[in-house]
Amino acid sequence: MTRPLSVGVAGLGTVGGGVLRLLRENADLIAARAGRPITVTAISARDRTRDRGENLSALRWYDDPLALADDPHIDVVAELIGGSEDPARALVLRALLAGRHVVTANKALLALHGGELAAASEAGGAVLAYEAAVAGGIPAIKTIREGLAANRISRIAGILNGTCNYILTTMRERGREFAEVLADAQKLGYAEADPAFDIDGIDAAHKLAILAALAFGQPVNFADVHVEGIRAISALDQSFARELGYRIKLLGIARQTPAGVQTRVHPCMVPENAPLARVDGVYNAVVVEGDFAGRIMLEGRGAGAGPTASAVVADLIDIARGRATPVWGSTTHLAEAPALPMSAYTGAYYLRLMVVDRPGVIADVTCALRDAGVSLESMLQHGRSPGETVPIVLVTHETRESQMRAALDRIERLDSVLERPSLIRIELG
Amino acid sequence: MTRPLSVGVAGLGTVGGGVLRLLRENADLIAARAGRPITVTAISARDRTRDRGENLSALRWYDDPLALADDPHIDVVAELIGGSEDPARALVLRALLAGRHVVTANKALLALHGGELAAASEAGGAVLAYEAAVAGGIPAIKTIREGLAANRISRIAGILNGTCNYILTTMRERGREFAEVLADAQKLGYAEADPAFDIDGIDAAHKLAILAALAFGQPVNFADVHVEGIRAISALDQSFARELGYRIKLLGIARQTPAGVQTRVHPCMVPENAPLARVDGVYNAVVVEGDFAGRIMLEGRGAGAGPTASAVVADLIDIARGRATPVWGSTTHLAEAPALPMSAYTGAYYLRLMVVDRPGVIADVTCALRDAGVSLESMLQHGRSPGETVPIVLVTHETRESQMRAALDRIERLDSVLERPSLIRIELG
Repeated sequence: MTRPLSVGVAGLGTVGGGVLRLLRENADLIAARAGRPITVTAISARDRTRDRGENLSALRWYDDPLALADDPHIDVVAELIGGSEDPARALVLRALLAGRHVVTANKALLALHGGELAAASEAGGAVLAYEAAVAGGIPAIKTIREGLAANRISRIAGILNGTCNYILTTMRERGREFAEVLADAQKLGYAEADPAFDIDGIDAAHKLAILAALAFGQPVNFADVHVEGIRAISALDQSFARELGYRIKLLGIARQTPAGVQTRVHPCMVPENAPLARVDGVYNAVVVEGDFAGRIMLEGRGAGAGPTASAVVADLIDIARGRATPVWGSTTHLAEAPALPMSAYTGAYYLRLMVVDRPGVIADVTCALRDAGVSLESMLQHGRSPGETVPIVLVTHETRESQMRAALDRIERLDSVLERPSLIRIELG
Repeated sequence: MTRPLSVGVAGLGTVGGGVLRLLRENADLIAARAGRPITVTAISARDRTRDRGENLSALRWYDDPLALADDPHIDVVAELIGGSEDPARALVLRALLAGRHVVTANKALLALHGGELAAASEAGGAVLAYEAAVAGGIPAIKTIREGLAANRISRIAGILNGTCNYILTTMRERGREFAEVLADAQKLGYAEADPAFDIDGIDAAHKLAILAALAFGQPVNFADVHVEGIRAISALDQSFARELGYRIKLLGIARQTPAGVQTRVHPCMVPENAPLARVDGVYNAVVVEGDFAGRIMLEGRGAGAGPTASAVVADLIDIARGRATPVWGSTTHLAEAPALPMSAYTGAYYLRLMVVDRPGVIADVTCALRDAGVSLESMLQHGRSPGETVPIVLVTHETRESQMRAALDRIERLDSVLERPSLIRIELG
């Protein structure tokens, strides 16, 4: 077992560069833990001439990443190109079918084409490993797939996108509006120039779909993840959250119920003493509830060159050691429970309205809620400003989403309700 | 790979019973994740007739646990007897040398005889797995050994004993004294009839020695772990901790420094906003700092039948899948750095004295500190009670332990200092 593990790296962006640096800096330690050296022997990247701080002159270079799949001297392809479609998809499929193992950080690819990839892995007898696809440096995949493998998992909840958590944390700490904080985050490099993937919840939903498939032993089902982002969160909501003892977090939540599986990504009001509420800034966290292990929480850096490289190389070490697991953690699907629609969701809600302060407004709103069968736990209104626009906040008891939506439709049509209401689900963390 | 994995269980106490129940209740799920059924075929336990809620009549029973090591129909021995010496030690050695894999929850055995066990594992070509030995249901071993395998780990800090954490949490929340809370914990089953192993820090030190060996790639070195327990913590210290913004936790800490490895278990003042400070009650937590992954924290239940069984069966699933790792995570020792003595420790200290409130006392104390080169950050004294005994609290800047000890020797000899001073190290969590 002393023959080095030969790796072909596709993509030399932030993550690819981090992987090269990690393999070089910790080479001795990695060889001891892997039982043999792990060596990059081939590369495919767009620009061959850019200085990446690594001496790459001795490596085989390919302009076409697909060529890595055909290189007989490569044991593992590290797909670090990204994107759910070609060339990443074609490269991974071709490498697996050729019997070459694949390590990837590509959550979109896994979430959208996980079934096809698993079939290719099985057909080619090759490992497909993807620790880096979810929660960066936190070994969330390994924990669920192996560490908690004996458990029937009932629920996963996670802060899966560091950009959103950074923005929400900064809004809360500084009392600033979403758009300003986003602009600053872009300047600091914490948010992309096109931030939609992050702030609209899509990135978190990709990761949640992967975690749910692993946890519940079902095919990946990204299409049925309910997704809402954080654009609508205002400084006012942050301020009311504080007053009510909550923190606003974008959570990805997957639950196994007797009726089916529910997967959703949306902003949540989390009680401020819940462990997930304390996870701030760019940190990620994943809570897993198992029937024997109980509740486990993992916390750490969810992105960045170092943490992502740590996860990629952990997968390479597993492969070097011959530690293999089926792509979705089990030999057969454990179940194929139906996906529950969001209308079947039940929970408590925070509802903020901007209303004209005049007699009868509260009655109109509360009648709409009562008629839809929604019961109120509390209401907040500060001071009085007759004729002016004022915020009122209502917190409901457990309610079915379909009832809440019915009430909201009617409330939105009231003359005295001026802006789009802010509706945030309350989640225990 | 459809032949069942045949397991012999030694010891049917709380953990052994939990393992049998888990293997039965989640049999289908475990078989899918393991790639084949996992079946208990033989047992050794003291009392064959006790009703354990399981139908064990079809199994082979052995009065002598060592017989499990010789049973050719057993693939894996689950050693759940406990204790660092025979029969547990003899059973594990004999099974490994006979080429039978071993799964154990036995931290004392690992901490005291880890080198010998690793040699037997290598000689017999058999896996020795011990996820359940540290932090119960939290996959801390797998996370360090595999999930963070690419990282140079600089530090581990953990709440590794649920009994101590429960006692300290309850003292803080209820304002009660150690002895009362311990007595209640014993009634509730959270503390043993003979609690010394837990409350004197020995159990946490066993676990820390295991984590340090794995993290730093060095031979297990329990003898050099500095160990202090929680008996001396008083309600008064808890109250001052609160006032100063700290929480008192029994931490196990292992650090890799250029001069060597420092391992210590002792009560700490942890800033109340540090993640470890929030881990209360019977929960355990482990923080790992890696050079690429950054800081990872894992939190969950550290003991009990369910969590421990979850860890034992996770190891069985690894073995069923053929996922193997050398006992201490690497093929060769990464280093053998010297163990640093506690006298070389440097940090800030909380020092509480009970003094007679009379002129000159503070001067005597602060002169002793000054002469030893200890510099003060703050001092707390509430009100005045001339001639009475009053507490004073001093918080130091970073100080070498040897200097602090020299100052303390002199302070303890002062006439006006009445009780044994309380010295608690401040740790950032």
